[in-house]
Amino acid sequence: METLKEMIRKEGIVLSDDVLKVDAFLNHQIYPQLMQAIGEEFAKRFDGEKITKIITIESSGIAPALMTGLMLDVPVIFARKRKSLTLTDNLYTAKVYSFTKRTESEISVSKEFLSKDDSILVIDDFLANGQALLGLQRIIEQAGARMVGAGIVIEKGFQKGGDTLRKKGIRVESLAIIQSLKNREIIFANE
Amino acid sequence: METLKEMIRKEGIVLSDDVLKVDAFLNHQIYPQLMQAIGEEFAKRFDGEKITKIITIESSGIAPALMTGLMLDVPVIFARKRKSLTLTDNLYTAKVYSFTKRTESEISVSKEFLSKDDSILVIDDFLANGQALLGLQRIIEQAGARMVGAGIVIEKGFQKGGDTLRKKGIRVESLAIIQSLKNREIIFANE
Repeated sequence: METLKEMIRKEGIVLSDDVLKVDAFLNHQIYPQLMQAIGEEFAKRFDGEKITKIITIESSGIAPALMTGLMLDVPVIFARKRKSLTLTDNLYTAKVYSFTKRTESEISVSKEFLSKDDSILVIDDFLANGQALLGLQRIIEQAGARMVGAGIVIEKGFQKGGDTLRKKGIRVESLAIIQSLKNREIIFANE
Repeated sequence: METLKEMIRKEGIVLSDDVLKVDAFLNHQIYPQLMQAIGEEFAKRFDGEKITKIITIESSGIAPALMTGLMLDVPVIFARKRKSLTLTDNLYTAKVYSFTKRTESEISVSKEFLSKDDSILVIDDFLANGQALLGLQRIIEQAGARMVGAGIVIEKGFQKGGDTLRKKGIRVESLAIIQSLKNREIIFANE
């Protein structure tokens, strides 16, 4: 997706060989028009698939997921990273290890919003080691629902998440795949 | 906003005299079309005001804030509740006490996304005791920016936040004001 790649080139900051900071338009400040274009692109790529719900993880997945949900006219669920007082039981849960934050967290989705009849599209901002997506897949499995695929805004192609998921037969659509961040330079795949 | 009130009546669950659970359409599952209507309503109410940015707090504020930002064509910033590894310094911060969760957390916004020339609309999902909004106001003050007002999806009119903010001269626009949740019954104000 060219507009996204342009934005990454313009606003992305390479912090190390494997950390790209896109706080300027995705992870802290959000550009709504870009999110709308991202939603349109995911809707186009998954056109023809039966999708009844979208799942993402708070917080940075919410904007692209919401815009995709708006295009497809389906509800969006954001998995929570911690339990809150108003959401204590009746949950599907999965443990997720974050390599960036070096912490394990539990993500959860209320059982009342997922059923075995659901066909679910997963949307997330980043795909690196795939831990978050595998956690969401386990939650979808627990509900007996079908996972249609995963829409990723930025995939780190040099980390193993994309391969892991695709080898499991999951359809992964990434709008920008980064091949390398070495020498503080952003190189996209397939170019 | 009548469509919102209907949704609250239909999907809202009163957990106690002061806790209303709206996980079905706002705080866990999100209805994108409703969020779009909410964004349109906020844009209409603040029409004529100069607004350069929107600020909210992760996670539940993101959806209504994003849709308002889409309508007004301005960037949306979500304040973070905890510091992350890729966002460690150069922050405006404020401590916020949550009566629901009974915890104090620190919210933060990167200095690079706020300037003294900004005119900022604050959007949030709930207004109860006003702690979150007062925290955002302190952050906006630290940046030397102007706070245009606050757009709230659901105000608990029986708690003190709305009064506190309005007495400070802050323009607060709430799309649904709840007068009482007593006896598990949802009573809206001004009806």
